[in-house]
Amino acid sequence: MPAAVSDSAGGMSLSFSTPFLRVDAQRVRRNIESLARYADEHRLHVRPHTKTHKSKLIAELQLRAGARGLTVAKVGEGEVMAEVDGDVLLAYPAADAARARRAAELARKCNLRVAVDTHFAIDALDAAARSAGSTIGILVDLDVGMHRTGVPTPELALELARSVLKSRHLRLDGLFCYPGHIRTPAREQAEALAAVQALLAATLDLWKRDGIEARIVSGGSTPTALQSHLVPAYTEIRPGTYVYNDMNTVHGGYCSLDDCAAHIVATVVSDAVAGKVVIDAGSKTLTMDPCLWSPSAGHGHVVEYSEARVARLSEEHGELDITKCARRPKVGQRVSIVPNHICPCVNLQDRVVMVDGSETRELRVDTRGMLT
Amino acid sequence: MPAAVSDSAGGMSLSFSTPFLRVDAQRVRRNIESLARYADEHRLHVRPHTKTHKSKLIAELQLRAGARGLTVAKVGEGEVMAEVDGDVLLAYPAADAARARRAAELARKCNLRVAVDTHFAIDALDAAARSAGSTIGILVDLDVGMHRTGVPTPELALELARSVLKSRHLRLDGLFCYPGHIRTPAREQAEALAAVQALLAATLDLWKRDGIEARIVSGGSTPTALQSHLVPAYTEIRPGTYVYNDMNTVHGGYCSLDDCAAHIVATVVSDAVAGKVVIDAGSKTLTMDPCLWSPSAGHGHVVEYSEARVARLSEEHGELDITKCARRPKVGQRVSIVPNHICPCVNLQDRVVMVDGSETRELRVDTRGMLT
Repeated sequence: MPAAVSDSAGGMSLSFSTPFLRVDAQRVRRNIESLARYADEHRLHVRPHTKTHKSKLIAELQLRAGARGLTVAKVGEGEVMAEVDGDVLLAYPAADAARARRAAELARKCNLRVAVDTHFAIDALDAAARSAGSTIGILVDLDVGMHRTGVPTPELALELARSVLKSRHLRLDGLFCYPGHIRTPAREQAEALAAVQALLAATLDLWKRDGIEARIVSGGSTPTALQSHLVPAYTEIRPGTYVYNDMNTVHGGYCSLDDCAAHIVATVVSDAVAGKVVIDAGSKTLTMDPCLWSPSAGHGHVVEYSEARVARLSEEHGELDITKCARRPKVGQRVSIVPNHICPCVNLQDRVVMVDGSETRELRVDTRGMLT
Repeated sequence: MPAAVSDSAGGMSLSFSTPFLRVDAQRVRRNIESLARYADEHRLHVRPHTKTHKSKLIAELQLRAGARGLTVAKVGEGEVMAEVDGDVLLAYPAADAARARRAAELARKCNLRVAVDTHFAIDALDAAARSAGSTIGILVDLDVGMHRTGVPTPELALELARSVLKSRHLRLDGLFCYPGHIRTPAREQAEALAAVQALLAATLDLWKRDGIEARIVSGGSTPTALQSHLVPAYTEIRPGTYVYNDMNTVHGGYCSLDDCAAHIVATVVSDAVAGKVVIDAGSKTLTMDPCLWSPSAGHGHVVEYSEARVARLSEEHGELDITKCARRPKVGQRVSIVPNHICPCVNLQDRVVMVDGSETRELRVDTRGMLT
């Protein structure tokens, strides 16, 4: 871990050149502990998705607060996160031979589970595990309404489960779903989650009648995290964004601005054009991800100038519309931006600057850019 | 340079895990040569913006084809590109002290020019150059309609020029503009470029009456590149995207699909949901940048299935709507995607896979992720 540096600006990390991502360690701990309390209360395991922070240190904080295992999207991420915990879920259809080979190798070093939704993936993983001399745990991916991956019916989930049971180098561990389509306010969320529960229950019932047990039912996302108890079938949830939060979770009503633990610190570099200033954070720093709830809200929230709108991004320019600001940001001044979507934003940073009270340290983004 | 590897699949680079960015070297050379010919014909210098490829090797190809100097957005990029050429333009308002210090240091090693649009930046750069014992060339940034950076009038451009002339450690080299607002078809482009020419001419005339010469008038972008002769004031143009092209340049009428030299190669990983298949390239591979001309066109073009639509991206999932496809892509199969916006897409890759006929080599993205 890099040496801690005293931060004379009380968290503004003046010694670092902009733009950079400043992470507030106290808010991170608060977010982690808050979800851990909820999960405890409802006897749910948390298996956080590390795609958000991509950091071994943050994963350790989550494990210390009670997380049971970690979630990744790529085998490369799994190889890194297996250094932190021996229980890793690859929440991704590892269908092709190259991915299956690496997954099977990884399964020799940790308890690896993979979510699958095709016979193709089952065959590929079984063959790879046979070659590697490992066993891979399988969760069958059920589409509960997102319509991205997952089989659409209990019957097809049963077919896949039977196929897994016939595969000598795979172990059927349960069911998997991603309710990523549910991002509405609490009441509509409750109705949508009731439908998720009904589909999961029907599938589990069908499996049971076939003598098949699901020890794990893995679901959840940050927008639905605190409503997960409405899906009694769940044994674990996999939120990612909650650790940092962003404007999507704020606008979605999941958290407040004070719960946002990661800000892009940027410098005003131009005020030559009337009605606006330009900051040195564009789409190569903030991403072009829109605010899902409020696309017209712009490309992030300016903490120090809440009336400013991040109106347009080029790759390295962020244009703030300041026509509604009482005060005008000055050239050379620093501002803090809450990004719309923190996960791909983190993935653009080689390191983040972590501020913990008066201490500041650089934190490597360990699995940044791991595409495979 | 990494050792060349024979590519048994005639350019499909089967030995690399997906997703990755495949670059066709022959198309790159063709794109570079085609622009070089145009520039020669019109006695324009090409100073390519390296933000697109972020590669020293591609910059060398551009220089070998006649490019005069290189363009960067960040000082960090300039430090790397100065290893390739001794003439670097920082096309960015280096207004804050940290950036100015690094720029002044870089100016000791190469002929560095910086585009400025504030007195603040002039003062910062002059002070930094004094400390570093260097001289920085200055281009005054004039807003020709993009309304992002640049002073809006000839009079304000004259004010800045006078200020530069009074700064002992700066050298006034000329004018700078970025006609990034012009992305319309050729005829409207011609009218808009006439307005650019009028504003540049008025500024140059005002400078001349004050005894100030602009040796360089730097402008251009990829969409307007081949119309640059309509702005006789230009001495150089700074296109970036032309080297690879993307769906923005295709839909904008600048090039054809055959001119696209960079494709994301992805694998189909799921076909569980009706009417779609999922590929392993999401927003962390392709970016969320919309197609500027045709936002409903989706998140890129699938070469092998032109009727498919990249309908939705999550971070690691790309959902192809295949309801209009006569053939259905199969799980495990590879497809090639032309991204909407190649520049931030390249910035997500640690390396690209360069295919040159039957030879394949990995190419490092030298200035990837250089935020400062």
